[in-house]
Amino acid sequence: MSTEFRYPIRIYYEDTDAGGVVYYANYLKFFERCRTEWLRSFGHHQTDLLTQHDIAFVVKSVSADYKRPGRLDDALEAGLRLQHLGRAQLQFEQWVERINPDGTRDTLVTGHVKIACVNLKTLRPVSLPDWLQSQLQLSDAS
Amino acid sequence: MSTEFRYPIRIYYEDTDAGGVVYYANYLKFFERCRTEWLRSFGHHQTDLLTQHDIAFVVKSVSADYKRPGRLDDALEAGLRLQHLGRAQLQFEQWVERINPDGTRDTLVTGHVKIACVNLKTLRPVSLPDWLQSQLQLSDAS
Amino acid sequence: MSTEFRYPIRIYYEDTDAGGVVYYANYLKFFERCRTEWLRSFGHHQTDLLTQHDIAFVVKSVSADYKRPGRLDDALEAGLRLQHLGRAQLQFEQWVERINPDGTRDTLVTGHVKIACVNLKTLRPVSLPDWLQSQLQLSDAS
Amino acid sequence: MSTEFRYPIRIYYEDTDAGGVVYYANYLKFFERCRTEWLRSFGHHQTDLLTQHDIAFVVKSVSADYKRPGRLDDALEAGLRLQHLGRAQLQFEQWVERINPDGTRDTLVTGHVKIACVNLKTLRPVSLPDWLQSQLQLSDAS
Repeated sequence: MSTEFRYPIRIYYEDTDAGGVVYYANYLKFFERCRTEWLRSFGHHQTDLLTQHDIAFVVKSVSADYKRPGRLDDALEAGLRLQHLGRAQLQFEQWVERINPDGTRDTLVTGHVKIACVNLKTLRPVSLPDWLQSQLQLSDAS
Repeated sequence: MSTEFRYPIRIYYEDTDAGGVVYYANYLKFFERCRTEWLRSFGHHQTDLLTQHDIAFVVKSVSADYKRPGRLDDALEAGLRLQHLGRAQLQFEQWVERINPDGTRDTLVTGHVKIACVNLKTLRPVSLPDWLQSQLQLSDAS
Repeated sequence: MSTEFRYPIRIYYEDTDAGGVVYYANYLKFFERCRTEWLRSFGHHQTDLLTQHDIAFVVKSVSADYKRPGRLDDALEAGLRLQHLGRAQLQFEQWVERINPDGTRDTLVTGHVKIACVNLKTLRPVSLPDWLQSQLQLSDAS
Repeated sequence: MSTEFRYPIRIYYEDTDAGGVVYYANYLKFFERCRTEWLRSFGHHQTDLLTQHDIAFVVKSVSADYKRPGRLDDALEAGLRLQHLGRAQLQFEQWVERINPDGTRDTLVTGHVKIACVNLKTLRPVSLPDWLQSQLQLSDAS
């Protein structure tokens, strides 16, 4: 069974819009922050992958269901679960929850994201490096 | 058959990221600009709907497929087609194309967006006002 | 002598642009996160000030000097010092530093921000509530 | 006397915040759109300068005075005047006005921006290419 990763997000004015709620595109930023911190939890910075290994991760597709609005000053948590680990592709289930002052949680947004591993110069799909593939598989099995 | 609406978008530094391409969440901004201008083409500002009719449009779900990257200085065009017009809900097919210097076009992103019409105070779903419903149906039939 | 407040910032793709560096407008977001967390350190959420006291803080002016570029994955720290506390106005010195892997620091941006306290309905300047004024003065004297 | 350049800006949800007004950092985006279109009016894309001439423009400092709030659906116009053209540096006066439905105008924000011309690889200041220097001087004299 796949493990989960979670990362806290605080809502600032920059995240909201004139409707008084978090602007819908910004949840995709929170999704990405969570994926980046998940990768960092294995000791990898995207910058290193770019500069040392010439590989980049590009988003192939995303879907998001908006269930409840987030608001200014909300304490949120972005979460992910690695659903599928292919040779050159990863698929994530992702979500954003609000942690209410009483400790209860409300799901604000759920979604799915497909990521491809590409060569930085050609932008063509390439296999994930073996050492990264192994790390992610081990994590997946834990 | 449903009509299409198209709106030009220019790519600035603000839209791009360190990968040298348009940041993936920003296409949702372009989708929204296109829906807003489509509504404006009927003579309606979202502000008027908010202040005079107490109704707001909220995004219920979105999906996006990323086919080619957009880049700094690109001349894009965001397009939409109204796929379904319900009593309190609208569904759009949306896309973003690049208009190349030679006039050819490349599809960068395609997607689907579901919008609900809600009461501004209760945030509960409400029917689209009759006058708006009629206008959109007429457009749809044209 | 005035006390300082500091808050950590991590750089994600969303913060960068096609120049490979943090987009210049985004440092104003970091400035605001720092002011918001400074206010929160006194136990106040901007949301509470808005809804319970009908007051909002609006930026009157900002200046920023860009000294070094921030980059993807950088660990930054935003800092502020309350320079002047008027009846209806606050002035901050603000900055953003990079914390390098070896623990040294580089100043990326410095700036000044003037904030006015306004009534939420009239948008006219109003005095800071006495209880908030007192709290901030005490902090300033510490 | 220096000539002016003006460029239209429409306000969308993405530009606003929960205060119901345009988020203060976003005016720096509008400043930049105006500078980019001003440069484009001479036939230059920033992309070409980057890829063909290895030069980039980086912001050295910015100041902004916020006079009136912009709101959702506002029709704005961003303007600039080249104040100083140095060998490796440009200084602009910039502003954002609202064009009201009755044709009158309100100044929302004024500011100043200093830009340096740098070599893309070294990020060191370099002189503006002669051909660009000449074009800008001619424009300045017109």
